[in-house]
Amino acid sequence: MRPAPRLYINEHLGANSIALSQEQSRYLGQVLRLKEGDAVRVFNARDGEWLYQLTAIGKHGAEASAGHQRRRQETVPDTPILYFAPIKRTPMEVLVQKATELGVSALQPVITARTNRGHLRIDRLQSIAVEAAEQSERLSVPTIHPPITLQDLVNDSPRFVFCDEAGDVPNEPWGGEQGRAPLAGPVFQDHTRIPRGVLIGPEGGFTPDERSGLRVCRAALPVSLGPRILRAETAAIVALTLWQVFYGDLSSISS
Amino acid sequence: MRPAPRLYINEHLGANSIALSQEQSRYLGQVLRLKEGDAVRVFNARDGEWLYQLTAIGKHGAEASAGHQRRRQETVPDTPILYFAPIKRTPMEVLVQKATELGVSALQPVITARTNRGHLRIDRLQSIAVEAAEQSERLSVPTIHPPITLQDLVNDSPRFVFCDEAGDVPNEPWGGEQGRAPLAGPVFQDHTRIPRGVLIGPEGGFTPDERSGLRVCRAALPVSLGPRILRAETAAIVALTLWQVFYGDLSSISS
Repeated sequence: MRPAPRLYINEHLGANSIALSQEQSRYLGQVLRLKEGDAVRVFNARDGEWLYQLTAIGKHGAEASAGHQRRRQETVPDTPILYFAPIKRTPMEVLVQKATELGVSALQPVITARTNRGHLRIDRLQSIAVEAAEQSERLSVPTIHPPITLQDLVNDSPRFVFCDEAGDVPNEPWGGEQGRAPLAGPVFQDHTRIPRGVLIGPEGGFTPDERSGLRVCRAALPVSLGPRILRAETAAIVALTLWQVFYGDLSSISS
Repeated sequence: MRPAPRLYINEHLGANSIALSQEQSRYLGQVLRLKEGDAVRVFNARDGEWLYQLTAIGKHGAEASAGHQRRRQETVPDTPILYFAPIKRTPMEVLVQKATELGVSALQPVITARTNRGHLRIDRLQSIAVEAAEQSERLSVPTIHPPITLQDLVNDSPRFVFCDEAGDVPNEPWGGEQGRAPLAGPVFQDHTRIPRGVLIGPEGGFTPDERSGLRVCRAALPVSLGPRILRAETAAIVALTLWQVFYGDLSSISS
């Protein structure tokens, strides 16, 4: 039997009844064909996950009454922040969805010289993050922050990994070259300097000036993600996977 | 300056002239606004990468004459095969694109009980793999094989990692449980038993019978990809990243 559908609802959860939004009601009623008496799982990022029972459901709204708590809110281990230069709409939505599945605590858009910010709709990205959190069984939802500039990040940031990926990186496959960033593995394996976040550049890459600024920024750890050129959203997924493997909940050390 | 556009053309490369397809000609002429005399980079997965110069370009075709070889065909290290249950069109296209960026040698569709195979168009997926190979600077293009059944895979396969991900896996976040697959790390770190491929299930998960069959299959190494439930295409990207970190060209050992 499939588990009950799962919803993020930013209300107190416990013995109370809750109201579902029109969108949630339509999804449950018209897509999933749920009826009064059916169960839904609800979380709010504070009170764990609760089983609720639908007491009314229609096209314009629904109500549910409390059942019991299924999961307690965990003290989540450290989770990474994804700093990303906004990219085109479809790959950016893939990026937000996958980053949420991979456990980021927050997504911070970073405006660079080659960033087209016309596509950045924080509310839309936030709703994708909510949906991905619902489906991935997370008990929290990552925050999509308003954009900052790359200079803001360089001036005032905890340690972060700088994935020097797209654009004008010389293509030196299967080898190395003088001055090239090390492969991500070794940097991520350095447990004495755990980075708090991961920075992914825009599709066009960082400009030479931006790269110079990042190279002298003490908080930035430059890495290469290997011999192939990855799209920005792929680079983000790969870098977050590495973060979780070496410091997070994919780690064999912490398991 | 941006590098010249890059095309996969399955013809001998060297001193000869080559003909470009109508689609390639339109892309170069109408999207990138290239003209006679402009350079293109060409690879065929056998002869390395060559610089060619456009000698004619129109709406219906183009020709280019040979310049010089830019990269030799490498002896590529071992690369993984992705065994995947077909999923919906859009995420399956994401899966093929990202798997290509992550260096797979082949993609093998595997039909399972819960697989909807109506969406599987091998030619379409192959063209996505070509485009991803062009853009990721690969010198090879992964082959998309015709589908096999899960039983075919179980009966006759080299060692593969079985990502026991979607569907009815009990949700036991941040912990473990008796009988649950180990986290990916430890299995992937066992260098004496390098898996040749990675198996990702369908969105609905494997059936109990299928899972039983996989659990007794000596070639299948079950792993968990952590406490969050990943979509099928996300699981594929994560598993391939782990493969490259522990055995491939993201490895700190091989670097």
